[in-house]
Amino acid sequence: MKSEISMAVIRRLPRYYRYLGELLDEGVAKISSKELSNLMKVTASQIRQDLNNFGGFGQQGYGYNVEYLYLEIGKILGLNKINNMILIGAGNLGQALANYPAFRKRGFNLIGIFDKNPKIIGLQIGGLEVLDVDKLEQFIKQNEVDIAILTIPKNGTLEIATLLTNWGIKGLWNFSPTDLFIPNVQIENVNLSQSLMTLAYQIHNKNSSNS
Amino acid sequence: MKSEISMAVIRRLPRYYRYLGELLDEGVAKISSKELSNLMKVTASQIRQDLNNFGGFGQQGYGYNVEYLYLEIGKILGLNKINNMILIGAGNLGQALANYPAFRKRGFNLIGIFDKNPKIIGLQIGGLEVLDVDKLEQFIKQNEVDIAILTIPKNGTLEIATLLTNWGIKGLWNFSPTDLFIPNVQIENVNLSQSLMTLAYQIHNKNSSNS
Repeated sequence: MKSEISMAVIRRLPRYYRYLGELLDEGVAKISSKELSNLMKVTASQIRQDLNNFGGFGQQGYGYNVEYLYLEIGKILGLNKINNMILIGAGNLGQALANYPAFRKRGFNLIGIFDKNPKIIGLQIGGLEVLDVDKLEQFIKQNEVDIAILTIPKNGTLEIATLLTNWGIKGLWNFSPTDLFIPNVQIENVNLSQSLMTLAYQIHNKNSSNS
Repeated sequence: MKSEISMAVIRRLPRYYRYLGELLDEGVAKISSKELSNLMKVTASQIRQDLNNFGGFGQQGYGYNVEYLYLEIGKILGLNKINNMILIGAGNLGQALANYPAFRKRGFNLIGIFDKNPKIIGLQIGGLEVLDVDKLEQFIKQNEVDIAILTIPKNGTLEIATLLTNWGIKGLWNFSPTDLFIPNVQIENVNLSQSLMTLAYQIHNKNSSNS
């Protein structure tokens, strides 16, 4: 079943998860697809279609049980397990991510930080000592690491991503402005420059009649 | 013409721009859609279709002039103008973005940084002094600001985003984990937690048969 689900649906799941978590925090026990639709500004039919990919979760005329749906979507996303992460590249962005509290709350556990800059190695960041990138292979063999966060310059990214994949890392969260095409590893790219350029397009093309 | 172009096409433009910029740096003068297709791992027909939205740029049997296409896509994206930005929230992520060199290179010019934390106000970040958020309205009235980067906690985001829109900001680059629905402003959300959860899904569902 799962292999047929499109990436477009999968990309929407974390958003459902976030809204359901907020409803849960507010003490909401039940919600109809129409209410959820108003809140999330998507159609009720899209919500029903998306959730039907995973078996539905709702009873006709009753709505969704918020806690149950939250936990089930969490399981689908793999958030019922601890996902151990390492971070490679402890520059400004790497340090910001290492200190981001929202990840740990969802079971993403940062267990190692690596850099090659002698000025950064040995620093304490987010409660961890930055290790020399030379110790990476040994660390991965001695610890169960699921995800590597790549916050390194473009030039070294492909080489280190390939090594990490060979050493058994399952997922790469790549902030480097380069596209990785590597088999046997899941890759999620976050390209901040591309996001900003998309915003620039929207500004200049929406306002072109006013300016 | 422009209003008919889908967001899917627009989101691909910055990627073309990035690849063309790299080709230009390497001294490549001409490229066929087939060569570009191999490089970018998208079909040649998608490249032709995407670029045809903006008038084509290629001559049959000749290929694309790299520099011309790079500059034209840059114009479409609004990168031939200076886009002045301010940053609100000079925490870890805000500081990382303020120090990100790739933005300035593309004409995104950070001209103000604001925070409400007295411990942060007055610090120098990325060559700018962090100002009290109380000075925001005055600053926007005295400077031409196109984009505001929001790296603030979720709770204050809607309020400040609404004020910024009323004060004439054209675009919000929102890193806060909350969805903004505000008329008369362009919004680009970067939700890092959602990106990480998508990666978790891919890891747990691709490897489920192996583990």
